[in-house]
Amino acid sequence: MYRLIQQDGHAKSGEFETVHGTIQTPVFMNVGTVAAIKGAVSTIDLNNIETQVQLSNTYHLHVRTGDQIIKKMGGLHKFMVWDKPILTDSGGFQVFSLAKLRKIQEEGVYFNSHIDGRKIFMGPEESMQIQSNLASTIAMAFDECPPHPAEKAYIQNSVDRTTRWLIRSKKEMDRLNNLHDTTNKNQMLFGINQGGTYEDVRIEHAKVISEMDLDGYAIGGLAVGESHDEMYRIIEETVPYLPLSKPVYLMGVGTPANILEAVDRGVDFFDCVYPSRNGRHGHAYTGLGKMNLYNAKYELDDKPIEEGCSCPTCQTYSRAYIRHLLKAKELLGMRLLVLHNLYFYNHMMKEIREAIRSKRYKQYKKQKLEGLMQYNDK
Amino acid sequence: MYRLIQQDGHAKSGEFETVHGTIQTPVFMNVGTVAAIKGAVSTIDLNNIETQVQLSNTYHLHVRTGDQIIKKMGGLHKFMVWDKPILTDSGGFQVFSLAKLRKIQEEGVYFNSHIDGRKIFMGPEESMQIQSNLASTIAMAFDECPPHPAEKAYIQNSVDRTTRWLIRSKKEMDRLNNLHDTTNKNQMLFGINQGGTYEDVRIEHAKVISEMDLDGYAIGGLAVGESHDEMYRIIEETVPYLPLSKPVYLMGVGTPANILEAVDRGVDFFDCVYPSRNGRHGHAYTGLGKMNLYNAKYELDDKPIEEGCSCPTCQTYSRAYIRHLLKAKELLGMRLLVLHNLYFYNHMMKEIREAIRSKRYKQYKKQKLEGLMQYNDK
Repeated sequence: MYRLIQQDGHAKSGEFETVHGTIQTPVFMNVGTVAAIKGAVSTIDLNNIETQVQLSNTYHLHVRTGDQIIKKMGGLHKFMVWDKPILTDSGGFQVFSLAKLRKIQEEGVYFNSHIDGRKIFMGPEESMQIQSNLASTIAMAFDECPPHPAEKAYIQNSVDRTTRWLIRSKKEMDRLNNLHDTTNKNQMLFGINQGGTYEDVRIEHAKVISEMDLDGYAIGGLAVGESHDEMYRIIEETVPYLPLSKPVYLMGVGTPANILEAVDRGVDFFDCVYPSRNGRHGHAYTGLGKMNLYNAKYELDDKPIEEGCSCPTCQTYSRAYIRHLLKAKELLGMRLLVLHNLYFYNHMMKEIREAIRSKRYKQYKKQKLEGLMQYNDK
Repeated sequence: MYRLIQQDGHAKSGEFETVHGTIQTPVFMNVGTVAAIKGAVSTIDLNNIETQVQLSNTYHLHVRTGDQIIKKMGGLHKFMVWDKPILTDSGGFQVFSLAKLRKIQEEGVYFNSHIDGRKIFMGPEESMQIQSNLASTIAMAFDECPPHPAEKAYIQNSVDRTTRWLIRSKKEMDRLNNLHDTTNKNQMLFGINQGGTYEDVRIEHAKVISEMDLDGYAIGGLAVGESHDEMYRIIEETVPYLPLSKPVYLMGVGTPANILEAVDRGVDFFDCVYPSRNGRHGHAYTGLGKMNLYNAKYELDDKPIEEGCSCPTCQTYSRAYIRHLLKAKELLGMRLLVLHNLYFYNHMMKEIREAIRSKRYKQYKKQKLEGLMQYNDK
C-alpha cells in the first residue's frame, strides 16, 4: 500500500506499507547481491546506517547456495537476519549480462550458469518460484533487458514479450501466494517498464502495464550506456504515464547526482552498487564530492572522511588511518568506506524526503548538486 | 606494576597496571599486525569481544606506512582509536622469518624489506626508536630468534648476543622515555628469554635477565617446529627462574590446549594468529573442538556456531548462513568467524582467570581439554 504524502513539482514522497514494515520514499535500497553487502557489512551494521530496504539478487542466489536451501531455512529474512523489507530482482538483468550462451524464446531464457556452466532455464514462472522461495517482501517481474543501442523493431518486439511475461509473472505470483507452504503469502510484485531510449515505446508500455493492478512500477533498461541527459529525458517522459498512487522504481541508478535528478522527475525507489563498489576501491562519497582515500594528501589527515557525518566510520576513524588500511591491503579499510558510503546514500535520501515534504526540493537539489562538485580526487 | 592475585599450583593470575589501564592475567592478546585485526575487525568490534590487549607488529608498521607517520598522528592508540593497552613486538621475529638476505652482526641485522626490497638496518636502538614512535604500552626487547633445530654452540652464541642486545634495548628505552617529544614516556619493556630447546641455556639466560629490572619477561623462540611436549618441558623448566613478581609472556602460542598447558606452568600473556587466521579459512573454535564451516553438514544447520556463546556472531547468525557466505566468497563470512574465534579465546582466558582465582584450575583444565576433543571436522 503506497500513500503519497507530498508532491513538490514532479518530486514525490510517500509511505509504502509492507508486511516487513513501512518504507519512507524516496528510498535507496542497499545492494546485498548474495544475501550480504559486499565489504564484510552485516545486517547488524545496516541497522546503524539508516538502511530501510535491502536488495538481493535472484540469479546469484539461485545459482549458488540455491533458493531451495533458503526456503528450507525460512526465507531470506530469517536466513540473513533482517526483519525490514527486502526486494529481489527477477534475475533477468543478470541472465542478460552475466550468463553465457543465452537463447531467448517465448517461454523464457535458456542459459549457462556463470559459476559452473550448467544449463538453466528461466522464464516468468521460474523467476516467481525462485523469488517466492526467497520470500522477499517485493518481487520483480521477469523481463528482457535489451542491449543498448538496439533497433526500434527489436525493442518493440522485446517490450511486447516483456508484457506477456509480466502477465505470466503476475498469474504465477498470485498462484504462489495462495499455496499453503509459501513463506511470504503477501509477496508483492512490481512490473517493469522497458522501451530503450524510444519514448513512444516507453509511454505505450507504461500505459499498458499501468492497467494491471501491480504493487509498484519500475523503469528498467536505463543506465546501460545511454547519456545522462537521455536517461533523464526518458524518465521525464515515462513517469507521468505510471500511476501516481504507486511507487516508481528506477533500477540500477546511480550517482548522487543521478538520484537527485530522478527524484525531481518522480522516482521513489533506487538501487545501485556504486556506494559499496566504490568503497571497496577506496572512494568515499561526501557532500563535497568523491574522495580517493589512496591519495597521498590524506597520509597525515586526522579529520574524518566527512566532517559532521554521523556514520560509524566518521564517528571514530581518521582519513589517515583509512588510507593506511587501504595501502596495507587490510579489509577493514574497505569495510569502513562501504559503511560510510551506504550511510551517505541513505542519509541523502532522508534529506531528500525532508526537502520534498517541506516543499523546498528544487532549492535542496540545487545546493546539493553544487556541493557535489567541490572535490576532484583522481 | 604486576600484582600476583592467586597461585594455583604453578598457574598464576595477576593484575598488570599500565598507563592504558589494568590487564587481568592470564590474558590473550589479539593480533593486529598492521594496526588492524585481519578479517575486517575494527577496534569498535574489539570492545564487544572482551579484548584486553592488542598486539601490533613493529616490523610491518615500520616497512609500510611507517612509524614516523604514526608518531605524527599521535601514536598507535590515537591512530587506530584504541585506548586500552597495546604491546608491540621488537620486529626481531619478522626480520628473521620474513625479511630477505639478512646478515646478523653484533650491532644488529641488515636485511631487505619483504615489501619493496629496500635495505634496512635494525638493531636494539632502532627497534626501541620505532616502538617509541609507535608509543605502544609495552615494548619488546630486540632479540635474535635462532632457527630450529640449531647446534648448542650456535644457540649459546646467539643467546649471549641477545643478552647484550637486551642491555642496549633497556638503555635506549630509558633514554627515549626521557625525551621531551616522546608520546608515551611510560613505555614499558619486556625482556625475552631464548635458548632453543636446551634447558640449561634457557635457565642460565633466565637467571641473567631476571637480574635486570624489566617490566615483564617473555619466553621466545618456541612453537617454531619443536614438539608440544618439548615446548611444555622448556616452559616448565624455565618459568621458575623468572621473577614471580613479573608477568610471563609466551610468544606466539598457540592452540587452546597449548594455552591451557602453558597457564598451568605459570604463563600470564599469550598471543597467536590462530583465531584470526583459522577464522579466515572457515574454521571456528568451540568448547567442543574446531569446526570447519565449509562442511556440507552445516548447509541447513540453523544453530549458532556455539550454542550459549555470547559473541556478536553467535548472538545473531546461523551456521548455515555463515557456510553460505564462505561458499559465496563473501568477506562477511570470515569476519563473523574471526569475531567468534577472538571472543572464544578472550572468553576462555576469563574462565581460566576465574578458575585460578578460585583455586580449581586443574579441574577446569581437565574438563576443558576433554571438551576440546569432541569435534573432528576436517
